[in-house]
Amino acid sequence: MSSSPDNYIPKSPVSIACNIEKTLEVLGGKWAFLILRELFGGTKRFGELQRSIPAVSPRALTSTLRHLEDKGVLERHVFPTVPVTVEYTLTPKGEDLHRIIKEMKLWAAKWT
Amino acid sequence: MSSSPDNYIPKSPVSIACNIEKTLEVLGGKWAFLILRELFGGTKRFGELQRSIPAVSPRALTSTLRHLEDKGVLERHVFPTVPVTVEYTLTPKGEDLHRIIKEMKLWAAKWT
Repeated sequence: MSSSPDNYIPKSPVSIACNIEKTLEVLGGKWAFLILRELFGGTKRFGELQRSIPAVSPRALTSTLRHLEDKGVLERHVFPTVPVTVEYTLTPKGEDLHRIIKEMKLWAAKWT
Repeated sequence: MSSSPDNYIPKSPVSIACNIEKTLEVLGGKWAFLILRELFGGTKRFGELQRSIPAVSPRALTSTLRHLEDKGVLERHVFPTVPVTVEYTLTPKGEDLHRIIKEMKLWAAKWT
């Protein structure tokens, strides 16, 4: 009986490490975590994010939001108001990061 | 009634982000995760780690082990045998990373 590649692909240690690398790529960087934290609370407009995280420059905020959008973690919706309204919402892939970030916060609070 | 700084220091969003950065500094890098995974199973000698992770060069293994030791995540014990025996053991701080890595593996398996 052969197992279907769709159902069972044994992963080598190195490919598991690569997957973890992908997780770190999403969460790494100076601002990703703070932005995700805001979005766990629900959809936010660009200006709301800017006000919630005053230490981030508009340029860094834009670049981190684009990075997270490229990684499939959030969606950007543009509404043709005047001025234009841009909203950011986590995808299910992004919502699922909550558990990792919760564990990281617990670890950091205890040990750093 | 004033609260003691030892008991209650409200953390700003930026200082929470800095703590998360510290977590990422420990877990980041190409090999840290694979080495931690081996050590979650108990103390290992350098040669055992090398054999368990054949893809890592001795130089990269040494450098990652030193990085993790500097971060207080593992301890290095040298025994004056011939040839010398070097063992690596997780500290409690290192053992506590297990929960984060477990969540990262689950996320990566589901989404990457």
